[in-house]
Amino acid sequence: MKLYDAAWAPSPRRVRMYLAEKAIQVERVPIDLAAGEHLGDAYRALVPRGVVPALELDDGEVIVESAAICRFFEALHPDPPLFGVRPVEIARIESWTRRIEAEGYAAAAYALRNGVPAFAGRGLPGHWPEVSQIPALVDRARVMWAGFAEALDQQLAQNEWVAGDRYSFADITALATIDFARRARLTLPEGAEHIARWYGIVAARPSAEA
Amino acid sequence: MKLYDAAWAPSPRRVRMYLAEKAIQVERVPIDLAAGEHLGDAYRALVPRGVVPALELDDGEVIVESAAICRFFEALHPDPPLFGVRPVEIARIESWTRRIEAEGYAAAAYALRNGVPAFAGRGLPGHWPEVSQIPALVDRARVMWAGFAEALDQQLAQNEWVAGDRYSFADITALATIDFARRARLTLPEGAEHIARWYGIVAARPSAEA
Repeated sequence: MKLYDAAWAPSPRRVRMYLAEKAIQVERVPIDLAAGEHLGDAYRALVPRGVVPALELDDGEVIVESAAICRFFEALHPDPPLFGVRPVEIARIESWTRRIEAEGYAAAAYALRNGVPAFAGRGLPGHWPEVSQIPALVDRARVMWAGFAEALDQQLAQNEWVAGDRYSFADITALATIDFARRARLTLPEGAEHIARWYGIVAARPSAEA
Repeated sequence: MKLYDAAWAPSPRRVRMYLAEKAIQVERVPIDLAAGEHLGDAYRALVPRGVVPALELDDGEVIVESAAICRFFEALHPDPPLFGVRPVEIARIESWTRRIEAEGYAAAAYALRNGVPAFAGRGLPGHWPEVSQIPALVDRARVMWAGFAEALDQQLAQNEWVAGDRYSFADITALATIDFARRARLTLPEGAEHIARWYGIVAARPSAEA
């Protein structure tokens, strides 16, 4: 197996953090996003959409989407469980993972891809026809980010971890999102004390270095 | 348990199709989206973000996000499996579900919420501060929709079902997305013959009526 990986970007980091938490070793192939390697012919012969990360299995099949790659490894190596065991845990982890993605992660991606000159013409991740930046999405991103931070802070006021009483894939997703958003100049509001408490703990785990 | 449900909208339909495929009966409480019931105080006391569907458990806990609700039932009632059994099946289903959501479903939601006057001020689903429509997102949606249709057609040229050789949650997601997109005037291109073959089969299943 080979994991096509990239520095800096949040989705590859999510997979690396997941693998670090599970102590799973996988051969990694670095893809240079800054040089546009993910949009070149060689990589796109493997991954037509040109997205990173991607997992190439030994039979040549390629799996894209960071959550799908992590669920593949979860099925192979169930312990420690990061997607839940009891039905309600499974549901909470999936629910919070998706809320973080739809509100927080989407806000950061909107702000970065539509507000930063380096992403001109690349409003969507991966290989697409030219997609113009939409500056109004940066304003929308600020509304989404504020709503995300408020909801997550309320959740962490009542729960030790994002999805309840156990560290999970939702915590990995939240950390990757918050660190990514900082690059898009979306930061946590001053009053988000419960997120701050949680952040200090998750950012100190060895997996956060991955 | 109570499932807060709504006619017309794609996410509640995804849950209804899933439940129909599994022959699971759940008490349903209809929420009137056209009348704004999901944004009213009573519903928001239960679901602060004002999104539908939501599953209220017997102890009062509320689970949001259609995929999370379906995964909850999958854990309780594993057969027939709709999220996969073997690791590679699990990964394919998750990967395609997310691609359909990120490219096809997002395109439909962009086009509808930013292009239809009835959604003025409600650019995001659920309860948010006023979010203005962004007409440029309707153009971006067309690019995304074309890319989604092309990728899905290629996948269905080589596979009987969206995620391989078995009907799964990815097929449910694709059907809900394609039917939803039609309301946003995003239709399948003429040449998408493999999607057409697949659509005829999935749309004829009793679950499609749910």
